[in-house]
Amino acid sequence: MPPTSRIITLTSDFGIADHYVGTMRGVVFSINPEARVVDISNSIPSFDVLEGALTIDQAYRYFPKGTVHLVIVDPGVGSARRPVLASAGGHFFLAPDNGVLSLVLAREGGEVRHVTSSHYFLQPLSNTFHGRDIFAPVAAHLSKNMEAQKFGEIITDFQRFAVPRPKQISAGELRGAIIKVDKFGNLVTNVRAEEISNAQNLRISIGSQVITKLAASYAEGAPSELFCIVGSMGYVEIATNRGSAAKLCSAARGMEVTVLT
Amino acid sequence: MPPTSRIITLTSDFGIADHYVGTMRGVVFSINPEARVVDISNSIPSFDVLEGALTIDQAYRYFPKGTVHLVIVDPGVGSARRPVLASAGGHFFLAPDNGVLSLVLAREGGEVRHVTSSHYFLQPLSNTFHGRDIFAPVAAHLSKNMEAQKFGEIITDFQRFAVPRPKQISAGELRGAIIKVDKFGNLVTNVRAEEISNAQNLRISIGSQVITKLAASYAEGAPSELFCIVGSMGYVEIATNRGSAAKLCSAARGMEVTVLT
Amino acid sequence: MPPTSRIITLTSDFGIADHYVGTMRGVVFSINPEARVVDISNSIPSFDVLEGALTIDQAYRYFPKGTVHLVIVDPGVGSARRPVLASAGGHFFLAPDNGVLSLVLAREGGEVRHVTSSHYFLQPLSNTFHGRDIFAPVAAHLSKNMEAQKFGEIITDFQRFAVPRPKQISAGELRGAIIKVDKFGNLVTNVRAEEISNAQNLRISIGSQVITKLAASYAEGAPSELFCIVGSMGYVEIATNRGSAAKLCSAARGMEVTVLT
Repeated sequence: MPPTSRIITLTSDFGIADHYVGTMRGVVFSINPEARVVDISNSIPSFDVLEGALTIDQAYRYFPKGTVHLVIVDPGVGSARRPVLASAGGHFFLAPDNGVLSLVLAREGGEVRHVTSSHYFLQPLSNTFHGRDIFAPVAAHLSKNMEAQKFGEIITDFQRFAVPRPKQISAGELRGAIIKVDKFGNLVTNVRAEEISNAQNLRISIGSQVITKLAASYAEGAPSELFCIVGSMGYVEIATNRGSAAKLCSAARGMEVTVLT
Repeated sequence: MPPTSRIITLTSDFGIADHYVGTMRGVVFSINPEARVVDISNSIPSFDVLEGALTIDQAYRYFPKGTVHLVIVDPGVGSARRPVLASAGGHFFLAPDNGVLSLVLAREGGEVRHVTSSHYFLQPLSNTFHGRDIFAPVAAHLSKNMEAQKFGEIITDFQRFAVPRPKQISAGELRGAIIKVDKFGNLVTNVRAEEISNAQNLRISIGSQVITKLAASYAEGAPSELFCIVGSMGYVEIATNRGSAAKLCSAARGMEVTVLT
Repeated sequence: MPPTSRIITLTSDFGIADHYVGTMRGVVFSINPEARVVDISNSIPSFDVLEGALTIDQAYRYFPKGTVHLVIVDPGVGSARRPVLASAGGHFFLAPDNGVLSLVLAREGGEVRHVTSSHYFLQPLSNTFHGRDIFAPVAAHLSKNMEAQKFGEIITDFQRFAVPRPKQISAGELRGAIIKVDKFGNLVTNVRAEEISNAQNLRISIGSQVITKLAASYAEGAPSELFCIVGSMGYVEIATNRGSAAKLCSAARGMEVTVLT
């Protein structure tokens, strides 16, 4: 027996303390009582479209094809920004048109539609909570094995951005940045594993710290020692064993790192 | 095929770090393996019955009729306060008798029962964790399409309170309060949308700030500009575009706002 | 109709903000679309194996027999530490071999296997995220009613530790410690209910505070009064009514308590 409905995942900056995400779940179950709703993260920092883009890009590939991914980081809610439905890599993505799907679309290609099927929206339609009034009901209908073309026309002028790439400063010198600090305090840089794979004398500077060790696992480090590691996201990370590299480096997202290879 | 069991939602102040909510989920699945358990919020501030009341009141209406809502903010656990089961608006609500269902019952009417069916409770019954020992097992049995009258007799002397209403200070002057600060830092007042709908020269004061702009969407604001907006909860909110009004105003729940209309 | 698949629970220190837990859920659903995945807690403090051990020990017993419990607090990921599968008390437990199952195994006995069935692992296998690459796929296969012996051989040299027990300092004097601070600020000691059950003049000291009251429920306390209570975990707790004992005592985990009975 094939599953009667597609999985719906949630990635948002709504937080977990308010009623917002629970309300969206209610809307989904009211339309599709068979729905399976699965959290990716509802704790994206408020308005942080880049973090939302990184998060969905890391997680979607591990879900079954046909999954409907709701990605709602939406500072422009209620303005002229459009709701979009992307079909990419065999998955569906519902999001505001603000670039939050950029990494997925760069990886997969695919087609993007402007969601205009307003007969699926909740009425009255608010200007402040489209997660409840537009995205959740459309996701619920889509999860009932509906076809993407029922929801709107294909567009090509959707918003997209690239994750900032490291700059080549000179032969063997890259200037990159911290693009994410995770729950453990690991500092994820925008330097890809393959960009250091031929390093003879790897040397990474962040603030006043200089790191020369490349470890294969977190457990290889001595207490309070900083090292680099190729993390599960495919990027070079600065880490420490059983501690927070972010604390040791007083580092936050956006901080510059210099890589000598 | 009708769903074999009712949805159970969770609203509580148990937090997400301890085992409390997971343990309750286990109790539910042990009694009803077909249960669908859906979070509204388990991050209500500890003992904050008003916040619990606001949260369930916002979310329950979006769930299918027949849903069983567990609402556990329960500083009186183990004392003489009763467990109650309310049937209201086609939904079921299980909660301690401390007013946490006040807003739902004010909206829907309905009947309230004192839950006395102790053969459904876990034994030994603790004095400190009725979420596990009383509310979760009763919810699980109720989710198996049982009738409310199986759980106890109707009572009329249950606890209830009203959300404090703004006071009319003079013609065109209301004194209200912040009743909620959400994850984004939006300040939700107890002033209803209809109370400002005829405002000629709206003017809202909070602390040393005076706000005169009424925006239709968050994106209309300039950086760091404070404005008012009718939020998705139906109340007037003080907000800012891509930032926290709570930070800009140094505001917290309970702070007074004055509205000139 | 028997459930088509076993429940999978999640206990980890991955946090809820990053993509880690969502990615694991995706891996599970890709292998077993019928899976039911239930959170116990993903907010164990980073690397805190004792807190992970306490959490799973409190929650697992309330789930149906046959449940698969993923317990991932794994500072040794990528090193020589083994992944293990324990069958205990009719439940299954997948975890790194670092003692995080100690309390469950002390309570239930049972058998422990070294998980070597690498054909179930995701490839390429990372050194930093075995939750995704080893534990989630093995749990998904196990949830499809597979037998434990398919995953590896029984071992007896697995890691285990005991929760530190209070020391008998003199007749009627115990020296214990705070082993957990919960979301409400309750201070859970390692003194068991039965160790104070014959107390004539109970007297508990923590820091500069001396507590002599043993309450039957939280609501019995006066405002800001500290008291002891036998908590739902089976240990003596230091608590206060509608407030945080941790704040009143400036206490944290590991702090010493002296009990005179």
